[in-house]
Amino acid sequence: MKTELVIGVVGGMGPYAGIDLVRKILDETQAGSDQEHLPLILFSLPSKVPDRTPFVLGASVDNPAPALAEIILQLERNGASVIGMPCNTAHAPIILDAVRSILREKASGVRLIHMIQETGVFLQRHYPEVRTVGLLATTGTVRSGIYQESLSALGIRVLVPPDAEQEEVVHRAIYDPQYGIKARSSPVTEQARQFLLDALHHLVERGAEAILLGCTEIPLAIHETRIGQSAVIDPSRILARALIEATYPERLKS
Amino acid sequence: MKTELVIGVVGGMGPYAGIDLVRKILDETQAGSDQEHLPLILFSLPSKVPDRTPFVLGASVDNPAPALAEIILQLERNGASVIGMPCNTAHAPIILDAVRSILREKASGVRLIHMIQETGVFLQRHYPEVRTVGLLATTGTVRSGIYQESLSALGIRVLVPPDAEQEEVVHRAIYDPQYGIKARSSPVTEQARQFLLDALHHLVERGAEAILLGCTEIPLAIHETRIGQSAVIDPSRILARALIEATYPERLKS
Repeated sequence: MKTELVIGVVGGMGPYAGIDLVRKILDETQAGSDQEHLPLILFSLPSKVPDRTPFVLGASVDNPAPALAEIILQLERNGASVIGMPCNTAHAPIILDAVRSILREKASGVRLIHMIQETGVFLQRHYPEVRTVGLLATTGTVRSGIYQESLSALGIRVLVPPDAEQEEVVHRAIYDPQYGIKARSSPVTEQARQFLLDALHHLVERGAEAILLGCTEIPLAIHETRIGQSAVIDPSRILARALIEATYPERLKS
Repeated sequence: MKTELVIGVVGGMGPYAGIDLVRKILDETQAGSDQEHLPLILFSLPSKVPDRTPFVLGASVDNPAPALAEIILQLERNGASVIGMPCNTAHAPIILDAVRSILREKASGVRLIHMIQETGVFLQRHYPEVRTVGLLATTGTVRSGIYQESLSALGIRVLVPPDAEQEEVVHRAIYDPQYGIKARSSPVTEQARQFLLDALHHLVERGAEAILLGCTEIPLAIHETRIGQSAVIDPSRILARALIEATYPERLKS
């Protein structure tokens, strides 16, 4: 494990989103045998990582950053040099800046791939004509403004659901203890899926030319690649491809 | 990570079978939030682990045991105390005995859950009336006799496909570079699935009262839980449940 590049995945946010990213890394790798797949390590230690959303919304003072930094450093000690965090809300500056500051203090040499910035790069490269995207995400991600900020720099406007729909439909599809994806992922409930589809259609009706599935739980429920004329874009798959590109670009599927 | 039990998974054999086991651990855990899922670490380092089948068949002198032991020790250094290896062929004594001997030399304290023995325990507990099981597995697993030996001690006879069908149908469904599961897992090809279904039906026709999916790639293609009157049993799910039972038994779904 000394001489080869290893991908590190900070899982557990949620646990299914962690293995969903790993599956996408495998799916996007050209490999004809077990041995041709890329080396990777997944740490799924969910009880160590406080929920990101309440912290971003100010409902909790428990910043997940120290736990995330500790897991990244542990991945690094095991040889991982390129790291992915399959959780959009964890990319909010109030969390990610603190993670980066701890990594700097500890003189970490890892490269942390930024899922949201990679999504911007992807949009510019593959959808240069798109000027308005719809964002389906946790309320934490929506309020943190990470997608809005990152994409407005590229001249792309971000539409989000109206507050009531964000709270009562999108957020509950992810967090509701009865039917939400975090409580019931395998399979996802029909209610969670229908809530997300409704919100997705509303964004398209309001003019979204593409939709971002801006919470890594959402692709567990939504497999559509288009809604009407609008492409459905999965940042988790973009992260998977960016992790391959940063380590073994010659193995990336075209 | 000091005080809690952590599950370690030796993945990469193949890589999809590794995350399939992790998914089954999540599926079999009672959890209403991210934080209630169990701590686990997956090492998927496929290029480090020589293929198990050629070694068991004598076509290679490259024993995967040292690499497997090294990965287990690395999992242990990261806090994992209970280990699962989602690869049936890796449980052949010529591999597993060597793994155990290295772990003893290194004074390892991990508990390695034995997927094949757990399958025997499961059959006794849930299918006490079954006297004949059919085995669908790699030629390495079939020839190693691990299931035959483990189950004959319980008075259970193991039927395997005739040599030609084992080689040309079952083994190729797993290993063929064009359509085999190891080359194309997501999705599995229709050909691989049909080959396995055919072999499965033949085992049932010959009197198998239950079928063991004795290669961790096979559940990627076969989701049936019964063929005719015969139960289809997935040792990979049994391993997932055994890993939970060995760490957080109160969280195991009933």
